Amino acid sequence: MDKIEHIGIAVKDLSYSSDLYTRLLGYKRYKTEEVGSENVITEFFKIGNSKIELLQALSGESAIAKFIEKRGEGIHHIAFAVDNIVDEMARLKEQGFQLLSEQPRKGADNKLVCFVHPKTTSGVLVELCQEIEEINI
Amino acid sequence: MDKIEHIGIAVKDLSYSSDLYTRLLGYKRYKTEEVGSENVITEFFKIGNSKIELLQALSGESAIAKFIEKRGEGIHHIAFAVDNIVDEMARLKEQGFQLLSEQPRKGADNKLVCFVHPKTTSGVLVELCQEIEEINI
Repeated sequence: MDKIEHIGIAVKDLSYSSDLYTRLLGYKRYKTEEVGSENVITEFFKIGNSKIELLQALSGESAIAKFIEKRGEGIHHIAFAVDNIVDEMARLKEQGFQLLSEQPRKGADNKLVCFVHPKTTSGVLVELCQEIEEINI
Repeated sequence: MDKIEHIGIAVKDLSYSSDLYTRLLGYKRYKTEEVGSENVITEFFKIGNSKIELLQALSGESAIAKFIEKRGEGIHHIAFAVDNIVDEMARLKEQGFQLLSEQPRKGADNKLVCFVHPKTTSGVLVELCQEIEEINI
């Protein structure tokens, strides 16, 4: 794993929290993105060579809505950048970690992603993510 | 704020979780440190130019023990590196954030630290930290 790619924070009101993190960090988000497959809308802030991702649920079915209902707003996951997500998933599986999907999925911010179950990582929802590269022929 | 300095993870059994994160990241911790003032023992793993800090309470009075009792194991705080913690504390106070101490305190890993109350940061316990530099005369 190369670096902390981002930290995901579950929020109730994206507009309110985006203003709050703008004041906390001292600068604005660089991107807003809706991820239909996850029923969320997200905003990204750069911090060093990592990012903060604010996530607001777009429906009660979203994992973010369920997280907030259970635990309130707060840090939802840590994402680590990996070069080859398929290899890394195989390595973690062999090490006894429980992955939440058998195959990587398309996530926000042009990434292939896979989550690791928090029950196998001391309560931390870990995301692996690999940048999807354009193939120029 | 310059970068994510570290992510603090509250764990029940440092030895167990340290082994777990060694297998997750693929390499061992680089440091173990007891922080008497906080009643915790910590282990640090490098990840890119950031760190993962595992924290185990050394007494029931520790904030980490109380956190685990209330919410279970998991991500406890995000720490941002700052150049000048006193200036940054003044800036955040002016922006309406509630700081948990009036002055910076000596934290783990040779840092001056100050925490921001999660009720003013969408449920996230934010730590500011500034490296303590040796003064050579």
